[in-house]
Amino acid sequence: MKTKTLVLKPKTAKSAPATPVVIVALEQTQTNLSALAKQLQVKEMRFANEDLLKEFFGVTKDEVTPFVLSNATPEQLGRLILVVDAALVQMGEAELVFHAPAMASPIQNTATGLLEFFRNLPLEPKTVDFQTLTTSASASGEAKGAAKGKPKPKPKAATPAPKAETEATGTAKIGVEASKDVDFPKWYQQVLLRGEMIDYYDVSGCYIIRPWAFYVWKSIQKFFGEAIERMGVEDAYFPMFVSHRMLEQEKDHIEGFAPEVAWVTKAGSSDLEEPIAVRPTSETVIYPYFAKWIRSHRDLPIRINQWSNVVRWEFKNPQPFLRTREFLWQEGHTAHLTQEAAGVEVREILDLYQRVYEELLAVPVIPGIKSEREKFAGSLYTTTVEGYIPATGRGIQGGTSHCLGQNFSKMFNVVVEDPSAKPEERGSEEEARKLHVWQNSWGLSTRTIGVMVMVHGDNKGLVMPPRVSSVQVVVIPCGLTVKTTPEERRVVCDGVQSVVNKLQAVGVRARADLRENYTPGYKFNHWELRGVPLRLEIGPKDLRSQTTLAVRRDTGSKQPIALSDLTTLVPTLLETIQGDMFRRAKENRDRNLKVVTRWEDFVPTLNSKAIILMPWCHEIACEESIKERSARSDESDEPEDEKAPSMGAKSLCIPFEQPAEPKIIFGETLCVGCGIPAKSYGLFGRSY
Amino acid sequence: MKTKTLVLKPKTAKSAPATPVVIVALEQTQTNLSALAKQLQVKEMRFANEDLLKEFFGVTKDEVTPFVLSNATPEQLGRLILVVDAALVQMGEAELVFHAPAMASPIQNTATGLLEFFRNLPLEPKTVDFQTLTTSASASGEAKGAAKGKPKPKPKAATPAPKAETEATGTAKIGVEASKDVDFPKWYQQVLLRGEMIDYYDVSGCYIIRPWAFYVWKSIQKFFGEAIERMGVEDAYFPMFVSHRMLEQEKDHIEGFAPEVAWVTKAGSSDLEEPIAVRPTSETVIYPYFAKWIRSHRDLPIRINQWSNVVRWEFKNPQPFLRTREFLWQEGHTAHLTQEAAGVEVREILDLYQRVYEELLAVPVIPGIKSEREKFAGSLYTTTVEGYIPATGRGIQGGTSHCLGQNFSKMFNVVVEDPSAKPEERGSEEEARKLHVWQNSWGLSTRTIGVMVMVHGDNKGLVMPPRVSSVQVVVIPCGLTVKTTPEERRVVCDGVQSVVNKLQAVGVRARADLRENYTPGYKFNHWELRGVPLRLEIGPKDLRSQTTLAVRRDTGSKQPIALSDLTTLVPTLLETIQGDMFRRAKENRDRNLKVVTRWEDFVPTLNSKAIILMPWCHEIACEESIKERSARSDESDEPEDEKAPSMGAKSLCIPFEQPAEPKIIFGETLCVGCGIPAKSYGLFGRSY
Repeated sequence: MKTKTLVLKPKTAKSAPATPVVIVALEQTQTNLSALAKQLQVKEMRFANEDLLKEFFGVTKDEVTPFVLSNATPEQLGRLILVVDAALVQMGEAELVFHAPAMASPIQNTATGLLEFFRNLPLEPKTVDFQTLTTSASASGEAKGAAKGKPKPKPKAATPAPKAETEATGTAKIGVEASKDVDFPKWYQQVLLRGEMIDYYDVSGCYIIRPWAFYVWKSIQKFFGEAIERMGVEDAYFPMFVSHRMLEQEKDHIEGFAPEVAWVTKAGSSDLEEPIAVRPTSETVIYPYFAKWIRSHRDLPIRINQWSNVVRWEFKNPQPFLRTREFLWQEGHTAHLTQEAAGVEVREILDLYQRVYEELLAVPVIPGIKSEREKFAGSLYTTTVEGYIPATGRGIQGGTSHCLGQNFSKMFNVVVEDPSAKPEERGSEEEARKLHVWQNSWGLSTRTIGVMVMVHGDNKGLVMPPRVSSVQVVVIPCGLTVKTTPEERRVVCDGVQSVVNKLQAVGVRARADLRENYTPGYKFNHWELRGVPLRLEIGPKDLRSQTTLAVRRDTGSKQPIALSDLTTLVPTLLETIQGDMFRRAKENRDRNLKVVTRWEDFVPTLNSKAIILMPWCHEIACEESIKERSARSDESDEPEDEKAPSMGAKSLCIPFEQPAEPKIIFGETLCVGCGIPAKSYGLFGRSY
Repeated sequence: MKTKTLVLKPKTAKSAPATPVVIVALEQTQTNLSALAKQLQVKEMRFANEDLLKEFFGVTKDEVTPFVLSNATPEQLGRLILVVDAALVQMGEAELVFHAPAMASPIQNTATGLLEFFRNLPLEPKTVDFQTLTTSASASGEAKGAAKGKPKPKPKAATPAPKAETEATGTAKIGVEASKDVDFPKWYQQVLLRGEMIDYYDVSGCYIIRPWAFYVWKSIQKFFGEAIERMGVEDAYFPMFVSHRMLEQEKDHIEGFAPEVAWVTKAGSSDLEEPIAVRPTSETVIYPYFAKWIRSHRDLPIRINQWSNVVRWEFKNPQPFLRTREFLWQEGHTAHLTQEAAGVEVREILDLYQRVYEELLAVPVIPGIKSEREKFAGSLYTTTVEGYIPATGRGIQGGTSHCLGQNFSKMFNVVVEDPSAKPEERGSEEEARKLHVWQNSWGLSTRTIGVMVMVHGDNKGLVMPPRVSSVQVVVIPCGLTVKTTPEERRVVCDGVQSVVNKLQAVGVRARADLRENYTPGYKFNHWELRGVPLRLEIGPKDLRSQTTLAVRRDTGSKQPIALSDLTTLVPTLLETIQGDMFRRAKENRDRNLKVVTRWEDFVPTLNSKAIILMPWCHEIACEESIKERSARSDESDEPEDEKAPSMGAKSLCIPFEQPAEPKIIFGETLCVGCGIPAKSYGLFGRSY
């Protein structure tokens, strides 16, 4: 990896002593000098003249490498600022090349070696991330290039630097530094940002979903979209704006959303006659049309789905994917003649949600029914799939499928004539023979992506399940050194490309990383951070033996694969990885799914990051009391926030699949929460 | 088709004479009595008692048919209101059955016959559309079913009845009444509403895209999405909210959008600290991130696409699909190292847009470059595909692919190091070696659907191109009469279902219409209105001869197809229909694409509903003068609105493909608009 060493001199008063700035950076790094000057709080910097180089280091400009620093006196070094490129620090054991024009042969060293050299000097090197610097600098009116370009005023601010990342400026940012076990919130933020899943945005609570993450959503759209199409669900699109009148049609339902509704009150410079809401969900938008479109029981079932954005202006701490002010989801809205038909669909959809998590995202979930306290406002009952985040020990609602019963159809007067009424009854008294339809609604959001990241990611970054990974296999040329001839290099690159072509031909999403200025080690880190499931390494030796070394992202295990077996073994291996990821996640979840039969064990079990199955009475009062009694407000000084682990547990669901042992005997088994007879096992946990 | 006849008595003062209401309706029609009373402006209606029936018609309640009206005196008929179900009127020549319980055998007649009977009575029947009535009634607090149900107050308003449809209330609404040639705007509205493409909404300028239309958009998404994925474009999602600061970053660009921007100023009951805009387009949202993400020329090209909703609060007359305040589109945003690379992509995308129109929607378009006056604000140049609407003789912009040049990259400081700079230059003066990237943006919206409807629809309703039609083939059982045995009926229905299964097995989107209470004629109308490309009729005779009669929607032509040939002939026939629709639309367009070489011919040619190719100088002043001189403000008293055909012509594009004859010879051929030397042919027309 080539490097460059720049010696600069910030403007100072003529009489003041020089305070040089020395930059050691990868050759390709864009070292934005005006932005750097700002960050270092020095004045405009120019390249140092020959005198300064002579005075400080005893060299000409054609002899500058970082190692000339050892020629300076301690006093000189005390005045000097040494800046090291964060991207270079990242290189670790990779070979770095230091080459000044006047040198016969370059100096080679590793980043580790270089940093060791700096440590022995009496100065403190500053690590600078020029990537961030460039952006934030361009955002704040730098005046570079004045020599050549026209002196055009730059825009006041371009990319917003969100608070969290501003703090990180000046530290290396290519890998993940935070440990998943030690500082999970920071780990989550880093893995999403540096794994290129999201970027921050200057409207609070909104995030950019970058292609790497959006591909996961596309995979879900494809799987779920095709499945519901086969069920007879049709896609449509309803406006995102809702009039005040429509929104407030169903009072109970809107009560929960009202505090979070965003209102448009102006267009251009005119005030609107009345404010218009941005949909937080579409029940009140869609159901008046059900009333209009459903003319007869023969029109049933009617099944509508839309993929859309919704807005809930939450005032709690936002978290990418998990709690955002705008998010993407699908919302299904259906109407049926009978409760039974509606009920069947509720479960069909929930099964699909479970399959999205388990078969696509390799995340185990527990399907069940929500308690009365936790069900959707206005629904008859809510079914849910509940995930588990091992790192925090918290449950997370994965997706919900509601049976709305006849509540909304009564509000919106969605009726049909009763087809079972006898003809003679219909003629004479037809108005009384109307049936209100049975309705469902169901939704799955981009939260799925956050859950996937939290469950699988590790301290190297993302770990993507193969089925939803934009790139499933990355193929990297290895074993090329300075001694490799261009011809040998070409042969290896052709070999890499040929492997990619073969894999693509059998439907594997493979990509070659043929970038020239990066070491294999850098590329390994790059793709590990992004979680690509499988890496294939190909060097001259591999080509001679007609094999490639396959390295799994999930386990790090390595195995050689004969090139002739690639097209059969790689697809199988990807499916093995997918299966193993699910199995491990499930084992982990199962280890932390504890049956509790005595209240004394409840809080300690929660505190061990487990979720709990316990005999339960299903009573709202009991659930509220459990939440209160399991909060740890006295044990820590953390803020009273849903995010803090001190919060109390709530019921996640009443699982459809109940533990076989110990059996609940009604009247005998007592509720762990309150001691009255238990109805079934309930799943409890701290949750998102 | 079964019918019912109801005799009702509105509440009157005891002493006042009875004013009965007689309803003749299809049996399945829901006759909402309280809504009807409201419409008729009479008081609450009850079923007439035996006395009234005797007095007026001389029959008991078991002998009521419409034909008892002939027993009443002219004076009695004068007091009576006769209501005829619009759905029944629609039946035309289909057989209607009138059966009173005391009758030995039912009376059979057609709707035409029944209306003839009414015409001979001294009264004026009122046609009522109970479908609309039910909805608008349920919206306005009807108090039906008070006898049985609890007296629950109903919501104040459910479905908004838009003005246009309110006017239509009380008339039959199943078919299209307006003629495409005579009243095109009304035809367009009816065909969209009754063909179930859209529904009206109570936020002005917003419409519901129903599944029948949304399927077209899905087809476009699939075709275009897959094509750009192959090009290396990646999908992402950027927030729909834009801060004031971000939005106004690029002044020239925003100037055009500012008057149409919708602003969110409140969340829940709190005012936001500063208003937040809803995106009208995403240039200023995305490009700051290009500046951040593009670190090196090796990151180029970067190609991002998103499928999203955007809002432009236009104050002009909204039109479904063509001009709506919220609409769906895809917006692509890309950055390239060179102008050449950007230019290649601009045309690749434009070619895809052309293919969407021509290959999917069977609509011919003319690709070309926009004039300086018409190009996208802030772009270097804009390319476009221009459609033509024969019914109005107007051009319509179909989709645009812009080369933004370096305008935005300079605004947002999107730069890379020049890879062609020599190494020695880079070390010493690197800041001056930055290149601003070359950018494109391109978008295609749901306007496509409106253009398709306008071009292909006819006086029977929609005509769907097979490739984008949700249902390609509808199979209808025919030849079943009252004498058909249940066994024969079953055989026919099984035959229909088997045809559908066979077609679906070869990938044809086929559907059976086995509804029992509708005549074949009604079903023919139903599916013709919705534009299903091919109808297959199957009756007992067809099954005996193992054939089916295939009827094309586009031409009405009929041909028998052997059941054994279905799976080969039907897919071919659908492709033939697709090809024929395009060919006819193209012939029609070509007939109305006129070369004009003298100004005197310009306006008369426009007035003949043609679009014009003419030698043109490309000057802005000339274009403005043409627009002014071709407006017909003095010839009609129509309002000065973009919608009115009196508006002036503008340049639609400078077509890439120029007419071969007469050749333009620079310096010799003169501009038709202003007489200076012409540069090329320009395409001019009145436009949307």
